[in-house]
Amino acid sequence: MSNDDQTIAAIGEFGLIDRVTRSIGSSEYVLLGPGDDAAHVATADGTFVVSTDILIEGRHFRRDWSSALDIGHKAAAANLSDINAMGGVATALTLAFAAPADLPAQWADDMVVGFETECATVGAHLVGGDVSAADQVVISVTAFGDAERPVTRGGARAGDVVAYAGTLGLSAAGYAALSRGFRSPKVAVDGHRRPSPPYAAGPAAAAAGATSMIDVSDGLLADLEHISRSSGVAIDIQAERLDVPEAVATLASALGGLDPLGFVLGGGEDFALVATFPGDAEVPAGWTVIGAAFAGEGVTVDGEPYTGSTGHRHFA
Amino acid sequence: MSNDDQTIAAIGEFGLIDRVTRSIGSSEYVLLGPGDDAAHVATADGTFVVSTDILIEGRHFRRDWSSALDIGHKAAAANLSDINAMGGVATALTLAFAAPADLPAQWADDMVVGFETECATVGAHLVGGDVSAADQVVISVTAFGDAERPVTRGGARAGDVVAYAGTLGLSAAGYAALSRGFRSPKVAVDGHRRPSPPYAAGPAAAAAGATSMIDVSDGLLADLEHISRSSGVAIDIQAERLDVPEAVATLASALGGLDPLGFVLGGGEDFALVATFPGDAEVPAGWTVIGAAFAGEGVTVDGEPYTGSTGHRHFA
Repeated sequence: MSNDDQTIAAIGEFGLIDRVTRSIGSSEYVLLGPGDDAAHVATADGTFVVSTDILIEGRHFRRDWSSALDIGHKAAAANLSDINAMGGVATALTLAFAAPADLPAQWADDMVVGFETECATVGAHLVGGDVSAADQVVISVTAFGDAERPVTRGGARAGDVVAYAGTLGLSAAGYAALSRGFRSPKVAVDGHRRPSPPYAAGPAAAAAGATSMIDVSDGLLADLEHISRSSGVAIDIQAERLDVPEAVATLASALGGLDPLGFVLGGGEDFALVATFPGDAEVPAGWTVIGAAFAGEGVTVDGEPYTGSTGHRHFA
Repeated sequence: MSNDDQTIAAIGEFGLIDRVTRSIGSSEYVLLGPGDDAAHVATADGTFVVSTDILIEGRHFRRDWSSALDIGHKAAAANLSDINAMGGVATALTLAFAAPADLPAQWADDMVVGFETECATVGAHLVGGDVSAADQVVISVTAFGDAERPVTRGGARAGDVVAYAGTLGLSAAGYAALSRGFRSPKVAVDGHRRPSPPYAAGPAAAAAGATSMIDVSDGLLADLEHISRSSGVAIDIQAERLDVPEAVATLASALGGLDPLGFVLGGGEDFALVATFPGDAEVPAGWTVIGAAFAGEGVTVDGEPYTGSTGHRHFA
């Protein structure tokens, strides 16, 4: 079968990105192009970092699971987190919004209030947007920020330590609960609806000399794979160093004795950060060392490929 | 009926924008916030302009009317035009793309090629993006650029002359043709599928001292209304000074003797520019003087409110 017959479902999200990025050129303005948490762009007189995310109703959020306020908070958080993961501080965002004509205007109001409230926690604001009618609610966000020294996924070296900041597994546990019709554990459900990214941790890591960084949006192991591949190093983490939130343990137990570690290693959308630091660097406050980078490739847990379930994913 | 019961269809696009922008704060980074063609944002070391647009299949484009290549060109053009309308030069764009799982990957490839090709005409490039599945094709674009002196909609003064650059009416005539099942006049249909914005005209106008500027995306009269209201001036234009493209005249005649001026005054999406200049300024090459700004309010044609049809609109 020729490539021309393939659907986007057949080649998948990452396949599609690989394919279309082949036709993208560059210029002296493009300091860092596609492929990291954010791009780094020159202006006539300086630089900024920028990232974009598109959220589709029924795939990234459900209006019957989360309030408009929560969805606004989370849409902002997902994008602020990308700037955070570059070691940057977000300053401004744009928001494109499309929705069915019968959506209550109050829903849009509340979503924007949630969005702005989340942005205000880092001092950023909406500076522009667009609206359109559509068959389902679409929230497309672009975030900009300042980063003195943007930290990419590609700078980890053998000998570095691996550390994370923020919470892991809570959103995935909340998703698992909601998808089974539960409304508890409340901490997990709330964590799914309105995550709390560690916004101060990104710039702190950059200042402390982080060699690579990424936000955990696909899951800790999947995102460490991104660092491993981009940097050309092997990464091993120690399971016992990971904090398992009590609500994750409770939910895993309520689901018939699942391993809570699966949620912690595989869950995204808490927007934690994971980074590498030189072996002799002091890891900043809020960061926990969980492993190290070595010569080689791949990501292991306690020296072995992880074979447990990490199938507690966000909407695809 | 309380506001809480209103749908977004009931309050309309501009009503929704008015409503949600009330909850938006500001900071020292926001040099110009929502409400113009683009926002103006400070960085640690400089500034940039930024604009966003969301395009929805069936509303902003149809896959049976336009090729993927054309749709990519047009999606880029719409956003590059907003930067042009600030007197800026676009340098980088992000693209968020959502589509049904059965969309051929080749369609996405071609769309991105068209997008990049259009961007390359001004030296800009894609720097990042996101992809997702969705029920219909969604193309959400954010464009950034440099503008030495961003020109807003709000600076027109009584005594200024009004001038435009680019083409008017062609896209609307092409839309009218396509919507009746015609494939001609070719120049109009091509103009609808792949408009040719006057990219050099925006920076030239800013350099020549333009006091206000907007791109014609809603239609000349509607967009002059934006300048009139934002600047607090009346605007009168002379119909005989407007160029009526031959293809517009041909189409208007083929539709039973419609007034071609309706397409020129009401058609958007050619991404022409209209601006005001001080009465004693020299209007740059490529710009045609069509009228003047006066004390007062409202937009008139030959001294009278225009009462002809301008109902040749793009997708809503």
